[in-house]
Amino acid sequence: MAEEGEEGRPGVGRVEAFSDGVVAIIVTIMVLELHPPVAEGMDRLWTLWPVFLAYVLSYAYVAIYWVNHHRLFGHATRVTNGLIWWNMLLLFTLSLVPFSTSYLGEHHFSREATWVYLATMLFPAIAYTFLQRVIRVTGRQGEAAETYHRQTIRKAIVATLIYIAGALLTFVSPWFGVAAAALVAVLWFLPYGPLDRLFAR
Amino acid sequence: MAEEGEEGRPGVGRVEAFSDGVVAIIVTIMVLELHPPVAEGMDRLWTLWPVFLAYVLSYAYVAIYWVNHHRLFGHATRVTNGLIWWNMLLLFTLSLVPFSTSYLGEHHFSREATWVYLATMLFPAIAYTFLQRVIRVTGRQGEAAETYHRQTIRKAIVATLIYIAGALLTFVSPWFGVAAAALVAVLWFLPYGPLDRLFAR
Amino acid sequence: MAEEGEEGRPGVGRVEAFSDGVVAIIVTIMVLELHPPVAEGMDRLWTLWPVFLAYVLSYAYVAIYWVNHHRLFGHATRVTNGLIWWNMLLLFTLSLVPFSTSYLGEHHFSREATWVYLATMLFPAIAYTFLQRVIRVTGRQGEAAETYHRQTIRKAIVATLIYIAGALLTFVSPWFGVAAAALVAVLWFLPYGPLDRLFAR
Amino acid sequence: MAEEGEEGRPGVGRVEAFSDGVVAIIVTIMVLELHPPVAEGMDRLWTLWPVFLAYVLSYAYVAIYWVNHHRLFGHATRVTNGLIWWNMLLLFTLSLVPFSTSYLGEHHFSREATWVYLATMLFPAIAYTFLQRVIRVTGRQGEAAETYHRQTIRKAIVATLIYIAGALLTFVSPWFGVAAAALVAVLWFLPYGPLDRLFAR
Repeated sequence: MAEEGEEGRPGVGRVEAFSDGVVAIIVTIMVLELHPPVAEGMDRLWTLWPVFLAYVLSYAYVAIYWVNHHRLFGHATRVTNGLIWWNMLLLFTLSLVPFSTSYLGEHHFSREATWVYLATMLFPAIAYTFLQRVIRVTGRQGEAAETYHRQTIRKAIVATLIYIAGALLTFVSPWFGVAAAALVAVLWFLPYGPLDRLFAR
Repeated sequence: MAEEGEEGRPGVGRVEAFSDGVVAIIVTIMVLELHPPVAEGMDRLWTLWPVFLAYVLSYAYVAIYWVNHHRLFGHATRVTNGLIWWNMLLLFTLSLVPFSTSYLGEHHFSREATWVYLATMLFPAIAYTFLQRVIRVTGRQGEAAETYHRQTIRKAIVATLIYIAGALLTFVSPWFGVAAAALVAVLWFLPYGPLDRLFAR
Repeated sequence: MAEEGEEGRPGVGRVEAFSDGVVAIIVTIMVLELHPPVAEGMDRLWTLWPVFLAYVLSYAYVAIYWVNHHRLFGHATRVTNGLIWWNMLLLFTLSLVPFSTSYLGEHHFSREATWVYLATMLFPAIAYTFLQRVIRVTGRQGEAAETYHRQTIRKAIVATLIYIAGALLTFVSPWFGVAAAALVAVLWFLPYGPLDRLFAR
Repeated sequence: MAEEGEEGRPGVGRVEAFSDGVVAIIVTIMVLELHPPVAEGMDRLWTLWPVFLAYVLSYAYVAIYWVNHHRLFGHATRVTNGLIWWNMLLLFTLSLVPFSTSYLGEHHFSREATWVYLATMLFPAIAYTFLQRVIRVTGRQGEAAETYHRQTIRKAIVATLIYIAGALLTFVSPWFGVAAAALVAVLWFLPYGPLDRLFAR
């Protein structure tokens, strides 16, 4: 946490800690949208499913960003102007997720709400791409780092294409958009096993 | 907090810090359900007791998870894919506690609300069990670690059985369910003395 | 943050980090009570003064606890069962401050609200006293530590007496209660200069 | 995080961690003001622009404070009474930003709301100035530190003058006030490149 106390990574720990705080709050305030129904009865509770499903999707989405952020910052070695401000922009774009999540849940996955939701999901992807570029240039160098960056950037491009496809297919049915969001979650979730094995080497 | 700065526990500190943030928020937003009554008078304040009691139960519940998480992560030595995602799932299930707490308080410990509440309490137990299994396999080895895992898993099984018994007895009276939740809190609370002595060795 | 990574203070850092998170949230959610008036005009803004004054008092109160907690934990050397649970109880009692603050502000410093507020302020004092006792016994020993404990315990007793006097004088006018809360803030605030000089030796 | 564990910066890390927590919450709760409109339609969404613009301005404002705080604390070497309490006052003044942001957004950048907003922005500047003075005296000494302090204090004076000019020009049009806030953001944002190069030496 100290500028010098981190063996050659001056200040990186504090940027991580601040990002952790912001992401932890983003992920948690979304659950506040789950208002308990005033009337009793399992059928009343059941009417919450769109809000709940929207929460699950967004929790997975933000969790994926945290995990990627965690791994990416493992490659950062110093705090530059670019790192701080692209990171701030990434956190800003993520902070809009609770809004679009609540919009999606309250409007029961309508076509328009799904559209707004998928749009919100593209902004963090853009900020993250620039953040990664900064860390790729100023952070740890070497073959392992290069492999990491190449692999994750490739995956990010695929994820972005899936989101855009989902946004287009939302014209047919909003559920294609939701499926796109779920598919990206699976995409990021699955291949960490292989990546881990790569890291372990 | 740094990947390397932690003497052989790469990245574990940051997972802990993120979890701390999420749990701190979960525990604190529950108090927001305690709305001050508009009218004055001690009898008006008194009407808050179900919300307050629900808060006390849930605070104890989440606090126990934090303490167990704290001890369990003391045995983690590296961040694996399994550790990150089971931990994320644990935090997700805990994030539902404010919802069911507010449901319980607003519906004055009705049979149904107690049921929903106890169900919510089972989800974190399941996620925690898998998280512990991951750390048992990938974390610190040795006899002390094995003793710790055996003891806490045994206690977790007893706790789960008490919850299920409480859920069944809620058919008789919701207060059995509440008593079950309180009993589990006492169960986890009490035996840390002996555990500590074990640790001190 | 790591159990071993802290030079002889196993796990203390993580208890501090969790406490920081909870206190940071407590202190910040209180500002949410400051709802901007719907109508425009400086006179409308002015009607917020009781809510604002209650916020100022409580911010100072919680800030004092954080500072004292920060210094007290500087004397902790290991995490015991007692330390964890008294700390959890302290955080619980502090988490009730936003409630009584909002009660105080919404009821415009009425006699009853001031009473409730002062009562809420006594709970953390009790939990803190037990927490300090635990750290005094299990934490750092020596003359400097002893001096620190003696001085702060003495001050805590004086603070508690002022609160009780304020609670009694609230029968005359609630403003005595508010003055008591302010006086305690000044009491804790002022003498850190001398304490610092003591520490510096 | 430990009092001793930080190579000559006793306790500074924990003050940073607490400040990070508070600032992370301040920055994130502002997004809660973005209530999704009940009615569907892009034109309904569009009515949110004042609240959104107010959020963008305030996010940039608080982010700038965090970055400055981050760099300033890189110069702190020990926790003094002055450092703790000016920092607490800074966090208090920043905690009023969500209030004035929501006032600004809800009153659609009216003259009065812009005025209140700019006033709120002056308070943190004053607290920050005193905090910097404390760290300048008690923190790291030397030519580089002196250059840093001289440069940032100069910039802070310019920023304050822009705010005051903006507050006066708000009599003409509130958009001058908004422009002043944006201009200060750019002022702080831009020159970190050169500062970084200075730091790198």
